[in-house]
Amino acid sequence: MSPASRLSIALMHYPVLDKNQDVVATAVTNLDIHDIARSARTYGVSRYYIVTPVLEQQKLVEKIRVHWLEGWGATYNPKRKMALELVQTETSLNDALRDIETRTGRKAKIVVTGAAGRDNSISFAGMREMMAGDPDQHFVLLLGTGWGLTEEIFRRADYVLEPISGGGEYNHRSVRSAAAIMLDRLFGR
Amino acid sequence: MSPASRLSIALMHYPVLDKNQDVVATAVTNLDIHDIARSARTYGVSRYYIVTPVLEQQKLVEKIRVHWLEGWGATYNPKRKMALELVQTETSLNDALRDIETRTGRKAKIVVTGAAGRDNSISFAGMREMMAGDPDQHFVLLLGTGWGLTEEIFRRADYVLEPISGGGEYNHRSVRSAAAIMLDRLFGR
Repeated sequence: MSPASRLSIALMHYPVLDKNQDVVATAVTNLDIHDIARSARTYGVSRYYIVTPVLEQQKLVEKIRVHWLEGWGATYNPKRKMALELVQTETSLNDALRDIETRTGRKAKIVVTGAAGRDNSISFAGMREMMAGDPDQHFVLLLGTGWGLTEEIFRRADYVLEPISGGGEYNHRSVRSAAAIMLDRLFGR
Repeated sequence: MSPASRLSIALMHYPVLDKNQDVVATAVTNLDIHDIARSARTYGVSRYYIVTPVLEQQKLVEKIRVHWLEGWGATYNPKRKMALELVQTETSLNDALRDIETRTGRKAKIVVTGAAGRDNSISFAGMREMMAGDPDQHFVLLLGTGWGLTEEIFRRADYVLEPISGGGEYNHRSVRSAAAIMLDRLFGR
């Protein structure tokens, strides 16, 4: 099994921070579903979870997914279908973790990105090496929406990936761009 | 001047191909403006051109730009303002090239991405090295919308960057994801 096939992605809509550092549930964004699913498929990722406890939001994701998997979209753009097949909604991180265990028989280790200097921080090169060297281990990469993942989630993480710096002080990519770069650094070339 | 500061990006809405390989003008997408501007600012890119000959579309870009630069958006999210400051609409590739020459006093070399094996194809490592080694040269990286750049544009390119493979056969990222990865490969770390 390739390292990418032992990685799932979870786009977290809850619990995340808002502009004022309050814990909120964010709204699902159509292009987050599409862009990250396409990146995930390109690098051979196992599953792409959309995590939200809000039932209406889960239904929205399902509607988009079914449109591209079974509806008009499936014949219009089969390549999009291949990407959206990876999408799965879950109510919580725990549910996503349970699903990985059910599918693979393994508990996944949790990976987040954030500031360097935490005890469990790791470089992309280090993570790449570690994933290649442990062929039975599954991982889930958590992506934050809004103003980022909560401290509670950071404390649950097994690994904190180094921030994907652009060299300067400005570092405010979209979650879609960040996901693309992370997968490229972990599995590209 | 850093290599990134000698690179501009042009998101081409014309001339590009549609699903049937016909040459068309595509519609501007709000998140293309935001995501690529944020990536461009993160890596220190010089300018981000939105190229479209359609006046209504130019007005739409301008409306979005002004909202974040001068409107409510500027105070709500100053970091978004810093990104959108890089955005400039141009009617054609030639107009964008002329603007670069006016701003920098140099003619920009044209870089596109596409299939390998062209006479002027170059790897990301090669491009990175070449840009660092030629500190007077400016470049413009063309990004295709729709089903990609036309053959006419490919023929005008000075360099064709290798495709950003994900290892497998599936390779259908969004232009937003592709732009993020290209900048990361050229200027990241």
